[in-house]
Amino acid sequence: MDLTLISPLDMHLHLREAEMLRLVAPLSAKQFAGGVIMPNLISPVNSLQKLKQYQNEISTACAGECFEPYMTLFFQPYTRSELEAAKEHIIGIKLYPAGITTQSDNGVTDFSAIEATLEIMQELGIPLLVHGETDDFVMDREQAFLPVYQTIAENFPNLHVIMEHITTAAAIRFLEKFTNVSATITLHHLMLTLDDVVGGMMQPDLFCKPIAKTPSDREALREAVFSGNEKIMFGSDSAPHPQHKKECLGCAAGIFSSPVALPLLAQIFEEENRLDLLQSFVSDNARQRYGITPPVKQVTLSDNAWQIPATFGNVSPFYAGKKLRWSVSSVTGQNPQSHLKSD
Amino acid sequence: MDLTLISPLDMHLHLREAEMLRLVAPLSAKQFAGGVIMPNLISPVNSLQKLKQYQNEISTACAGECFEPYMTLFFQPYTRSELEAAKEHIIGIKLYPAGITTQSDNGVTDFSAIEATLEIMQELGIPLLVHGETDDFVMDREQAFLPVYQTIAENFPNLHVIMEHITTAAAIRFLEKFTNVSATITLHHLMLTLDDVVGGMMQPDLFCKPIAKTPSDREALREAVFSGNEKIMFGSDSAPHPQHKKECLGCAAGIFSSPVALPLLAQIFEEENRLDLLQSFVSDNARQRYGITPPVKQVTLSDNAWQIPATFGNVSPFYAGKKLRWSVSSVTGQNPQSHLKSD
Repeated sequence: MDLTLISPLDMHLHLREAEMLRLVAPLSAKQFAGGVIMPNLISPVNSLQKLKQYQNEISTACAGECFEPYMTLFFQPYTRSELEAAKEHIIGIKLYPAGITTQSDNGVTDFSAIEATLEIMQELGIPLLVHGETDDFVMDREQAFLPVYQTIAENFPNLHVIMEHITTAAAIRFLEKFTNVSATITLHHLMLTLDDVVGGMMQPDLFCKPIAKTPSDREALREAVFSGNEKIMFGSDSAPHPQHKKECLGCAAGIFSSPVALPLLAQIFEEENRLDLLQSFVSDNARQRYGITPPVKQVTLSDNAWQIPATFGNVSPFYAGKKLRWSVSSVTGQNPQSHLKSD
Repeated sequence: MDLTLISPLDMHLHLREAEMLRLVAPLSAKQFAGGVIMPNLISPVNSLQKLKQYQNEISTACAGECFEPYMTLFFQPYTRSELEAAKEHIIGIKLYPAGITTQSDNGVTDFSAIEATLEIMQELGIPLLVHGETDDFVMDREQAFLPVYQTIAENFPNLHVIMEHITTAAAIRFLEKFTNVSATITLHHLMLTLDDVVGGMMQPDLFCKPIAKTPSDREALREAVFSGNEKIMFGSDSAPHPQHKKECLGCAAGIFSSPVALPLLAQIFEEENRLDLLQSFVSDNARQRYGITPPVKQVTLSDNAWQIPATFGNVSPFYAGKKLRWSVSSVTGQNPQSHLKSD
C-alpha cells in the first residue's frame, strides 16, 4: 500500500548550527516541503542580518532539496521599521519566556512590556509563536501559562497566536476559545506520557520540554488530532543533541524526531484508522492557518517495514532501533523559489 | 558546635553484593549503628540460608565497625516453620509488588494470596515492610497503593506494617489512621520534587523510585518530620548504581545517599531550627516502633564545612561536589554482639 502526502510541513523545527545543522537539516529537507525554523540559537536570531545569514546556512546545507525554511525571529521589542523590513522574510516571531528552555535566557521577563511590539505585529499580519510555559512545577507549567495566552488573544484579536507543542487537555480546551489561536503538536506528545520518561528506567532520549504529561492529557491531544481539529498543525519540535549531552548527569532536553516523523505518524494515524486525516495534520491545516503556499512536493510512504537506525551521526533519534511498518519510498518535488521572498 | 547522635539507624538500606557491597557497606557502617538491609538481590534473599550467607558477606565487609545489619527476607508465601526458624534472624519481611522496582520480578502479583503468611507473621510478631506502589501513572502510584495498606492494616491489627520511603501528602494522612502502621522517609524525598529531576536538565543522579513528587507532597513530608511525628523513621533508601548505569539511555533508579546522609540531615534540620528532633528521627523513633536496642555508638557531627566527593569508587553520591556545613568528626562505639541473634 502507498500513501502520498502533498507538501508535508514541519511547523516547529530546531536545525541548530554548523556541524549539527549540516547533519540534521538535510534529513528534514528530504522528507518535508518546509519547516518553521526556531530562532533560539546560542546567539538568538534577533536581527534581519542574523536571520539571512542563518537562512543561507540552511539553504547551503539543504542544496538540491525541495525545502522551504520558514524563518522566525526571536521575540524581543522590535520597532515598526524593523518589523516592516523583516516581514517578507519571516513566517512569524517566536516568543520564549526567559529561562524556560534551551537557549531562552534572552527571552521575555515582563509580559506587560511586549504590547507595543504585538500591536505592530498584529497590524502587519506577523504571527506570534509562543513557547507557553511558566516556571511553576514542571507538570503545571503549560496550564499556568494559559492566562498569558488569554490576555494576548483577547487584547490582539487579529494577531495569529500559535501555542507551540501543546501537551495538556487544558491547552486543547483553551484552543477552542479564540479563533485567532492555533496550536502545534509534536509526534512524541501524541505517543508519550511521563511514564515513558521516568516510569520505568529513566529515558534521556524521551526527555523534552514541555515534559510529556499524564495519560489523560495525551488522550486529549490524540482525540483532538484524530478528530481532525483544523486549528492543530504538526510541529515535530525535533531538537537534536549529541549523545554526550544526553547520556550524562544533567542531560539536555529535546527529542530528535524529524527523520522518523512521517513514517511514525503514518503508523499511529493508521492504528486509529484515521490515515485520511494525516494530510491535513501535516500540511493542509498549516496552509490554512498561516495562509502559506508551500513548494509542491510529493512524499510517498509505502508499507515496507523499516528499522530506525540507532543513530544519525552522533544523535540518537526517537524510536531508535525500532521497526516501523511504513517507510518513505519516493519523493518528487521542485526546488522552491523562496515562498517568503516572492510574496 | 558539636552535635552527638546516639546510635543513628538507617531503616532502609541497599547494600548490593560483591564488589559494590564491599564499597558501600563500610560507608554506612562507619556512620550508623545499624541499618535495615533490603533483600532484593539479583537472587532474592528468600531463605534463611541465603540470608545468613548475605549477613556474613556484610559482616566481613564491615569488620571492625560497630554496625548491626538488621536483615530482612524477601516476601513470598512462607510456612510457619520457615518463619519460626527465621524469626530471630530478621527484623522483618520486605514485600515488593511484582515488577515495581529494581529486582522485584519475583514480588507479589496477587495480594489476596498473601494472607496466610501475614497471619503467621502477625502471630510471631514479624513486621511487614512494604514498597507501596502500583503500576499506575508514575505520579499516582503511591496513592493508588493506599487501599492495599488499608486492607492489610485492618485485617491484621497486630501486624506492624511499615510504609517504606513514603513520598506523598496522601501517605502522611494515611499514616494517622492506624496505630500499627509506621513509615520511613528518605533524605532525598525531604529535599527534592519532580522539578529537581526533570524540571531543568534531566538529572539521573536524582532519579529514584518512588519518584520525587510535587512541592505540596514534599511540604507534607517535611511538616510531618519537622513536627516530630513519632511514627516516622529515617530510611535512606540509599541505592548505589555504578556510573555507567546512570549516565546512559535507560538509566537505573536509585540515589546513593548513605555516606552523606547524617551531615545533610543535620543541615536541613538546622535550617528548620529543629535539630532537637534529629535524634528521634534517626534513631529513637525506630527503637520505639520496632522495639529494638541498637548497639551503642556515638556519632559526633561538627560544623566543619565538608565538600562531598564527586564519587565514591564508581558511584556518584547524592549532592556530589556540594559543600555541607556539617561533617562527621568522631565516632565511638563497640563492636556489637548481634542484637537479633542474642534476643
